[in-house]
Amino acid sequence: MSNLFKEKINQAVEILKEKEVDMWLTFVRESSIAHDPALDMIAGINLTWESALIINRDGETAAIVGSLELDNIKNTGLFDSVEGYLESFTKSFTAYLDKKNPTKIAINFSKNSTLADGLTHGLYLNLLEHLKNTPYAERLISSEEIIAALRGRKSQTELNIMKEAIDETLKIFDDVTGFLKPGVTELEISKFVKAKAAEKGFGMAWDDDHCPAVFTGPDAGGAHSGPTNNIVQKGHIVNMDFGILHKGYCSDLQRMWYILRDGETEAPAEVKKGFEVIRDSIQKAAAAIKPGMQGCQIDDVARNYIIENGYEGYPHGLGHQVGKVAHDGGSGLFPRWDRYGNAPFIPIEEGQIYTIEPRLTVEGFGTATLEEEIVVTKNGCKFISEPQKELILVR
Amino acid sequence: MSNLFKEKINQAVEILKEKEVDMWLTFVRESSIAHDPALDMIAGINLTWESALIINRDGETAAIVGSLELDNIKNTGLFDSVEGYLESFTKSFTAYLDKKNPTKIAINFSKNSTLADGLTHGLYLNLLEHLKNTPYAERLISSEEIIAALRGRKSQTELNIMKEAIDETLKIFDDVTGFLKPGVTELEISKFVKAKAAEKGFGMAWDDDHCPAVFTGPDAGGAHSGPTNNIVQKGHIVNMDFGILHKGYCSDLQRMWYILRDGETEAPAEVKKGFEVIRDSIQKAAAAIKPGMQGCQIDDVARNYIIENGYEGYPHGLGHQVGKVAHDGGSGLFPRWDRYGNAPFIPIEEGQIYTIEPRLTVEGFGTATLEEEIVVTKNGCKFISEPQKELILVR
Repeated sequence: MSNLFKEKINQAVEILKEKEVDMWLTFVRESSIAHDPALDMIAGINLTWESALIINRDGETAAIVGSLELDNIKNTGLFDSVEGYLESFTKSFTAYLDKKNPTKIAINFSKNSTLADGLTHGLYLNLLEHLKNTPYAERLISSEEIIAALRGRKSQTELNIMKEAIDETLKIFDDVTGFLKPGVTELEISKFVKAKAAEKGFGMAWDDDHCPAVFTGPDAGGAHSGPTNNIVQKGHIVNMDFGILHKGYCSDLQRMWYILRDGETEAPAEVKKGFEVIRDSIQKAAAAIKPGMQGCQIDDVARNYIIENGYEGYPHGLGHQVGKVAHDGGSGLFPRWDRYGNAPFIPIEEGQIYTIEPRLTVEGFGTATLEEEIVVTKNGCKFISEPQKELILVR
Repeated sequence: MSNLFKEKINQAVEILKEKEVDMWLTFVRESSIAHDPALDMIAGINLTWESALIINRDGETAAIVGSLELDNIKNTGLFDSVEGYLESFTKSFTAYLDKKNPTKIAINFSKNSTLADGLTHGLYLNLLEHLKNTPYAERLISSEEIIAALRGRKSQTELNIMKEAIDETLKIFDDVTGFLKPGVTELEISKFVKAKAAEKGFGMAWDDDHCPAVFTGPDAGGAHSGPTNNIVQKGHIVNMDFGILHKGYCSDLQRMWYILRDGETEAPAEVKKGFEVIRDSIQKAAAAIKPGMQGCQIDDVARNYIIENGYEGYPHGLGHQVGKVAHDGGSGLFPRWDRYGNAPFIPIEEGQIYTIEPRLTVEGFGTATLEEEIVVTKNGCKFISEPQKELILVR
């Protein structure tokens, strides 16, 4: 793992050069409670007392931590200079700043991206106090763009791990096909999936209470609601939204089944149409993706196709980035809604991994929804998950 | 669990009355990534889109959440009014504020306490934007005192759970006594302890890499460093710092062993003295605790006793509160050092649970340290862990 952190720190230095920022400061305290997600990219440990992890545009890295954690941070081997303080952080910290005299210091706050917003407000006020009587408080800027680039642009090592996570997740989806039958409940399916994942040593990609999320029939809950005692019945569309945490990286996929009614050998026309519109909207969206486009333009493609086919637009974004957390990165394939802030407008970059996950309602049968993962390439994108091409029929 | 949340919400209303604050607002976004610890006290779920959880001094509770999470928050049964918004949070939020017209609104930022500092700086800036053109931005105050009181003052239900956690932890310490012998390494002891905890279904009270923390002999790492390949040898003092997570609450305890050398039937005089000074300093500190005192006054008692006996003062605080996290609450039994902010000065309150954990070095043998847990009573305190009275000898 240490090599992966080193890889990301080196990448951060390149991004600082590109963005013309002298210093990136990750300032934390009791990070096992208030966890700045930046730590997972550049250190992989938590720190108790006020601590500064610094990456400079000139390539130098430094850590200033409570004296009791000096060994922990040294043992990571990631920081060129490491200092442990006993009583007061201010002196060590400002001395380092004076040595480097940075013109722009990026810190982890962002109105738009939670992943770049690890600095709590109280701790921000403390930072200003440490910088009182120095010129540095006025040189603080948001690290939003740095973190978005660092988390978004996957290295080959990261891409390999994420491909493994996807393959393993799809195997569990296949197991579900064997388990599904009329009479089982959403909660039983969830339990089956959790047991499979635990058996293989995988974590959950998101909150345990709705990972997996399982939806059966027309009366199932909405996205992000947990599995219930709803019973799978003939004539139901069944969906599952599920991902694993594998070697520190998440997968996030959805598959769709139909439970045949007595006498049926295929799904009713309206269910087939719902499936096909979703499946084809994903292909159309993927065909439109390339570096430099805005996420909202991609959301348009799938959303318009679904609406043109007579359905309502889905009540969420088309897709989000995936990485160390299930909803990762800065930009997203989101509509131009207030609640997505600036994320729909940030240009798409090579190396980013996005989900594509539209949905629509098939009246009387359930919700049609699939979720695939793609990686952005130099001139377009390619699927990392093998897309679901046909509705899976269950008898 | 829902009853425990209800219990804490009712307690929060009483605290709002006591502190004369009209409204306590927990404002979150993607809380599985940026996790506001206040959520663990009043809701027990995470929320994805910008969401407000509101507790009023008049007893009314309200939640404004993204529409897809409406069912999740309703299902908690904890909020009197629940609203789901589709595109924009601002309108629903300011409409609710206009209805209540609060004079003081406590929000979760704190320069001193991480547990009351769940609001990230970027999200704080967003909050100000939602409140633009309203009178409410100027009515925001820190919820530090509310959260400190709410987390600190344990209900009977909480105290019972924490007592169970302590008893179960001490059983595992007893198991370690049987496992300890010259030749085993710190890492082997750690592995043994983790297996015992996992077998019984307990979580770890803090970061896996140093829970348990195991220290053998004079060359062991400092507090907060993880177990190593250091080998337990005759003539070593061995310590372990360990706690479990049980029903959502943590324990945090330390015990101390001595490995007899050939021919020894008891520990050398200097090891015995080290143990006894630590043991007795804990009793003296506990005897001094009562509501209204400052934590630094209690730290003084143990620290001075240890120094009077010819040792250096320990390089950390005497003790911290314990609860849903291992380092919980606002006040602590801390020295008057910058790095502890105002925590050493906040008056101790009835119902709080503290650790007492001094340390000293016995040259050539190792570190003498014990950790007990006490609960503050009306006129003093009582031990919840049965204090270690004698050094445990291992052959």
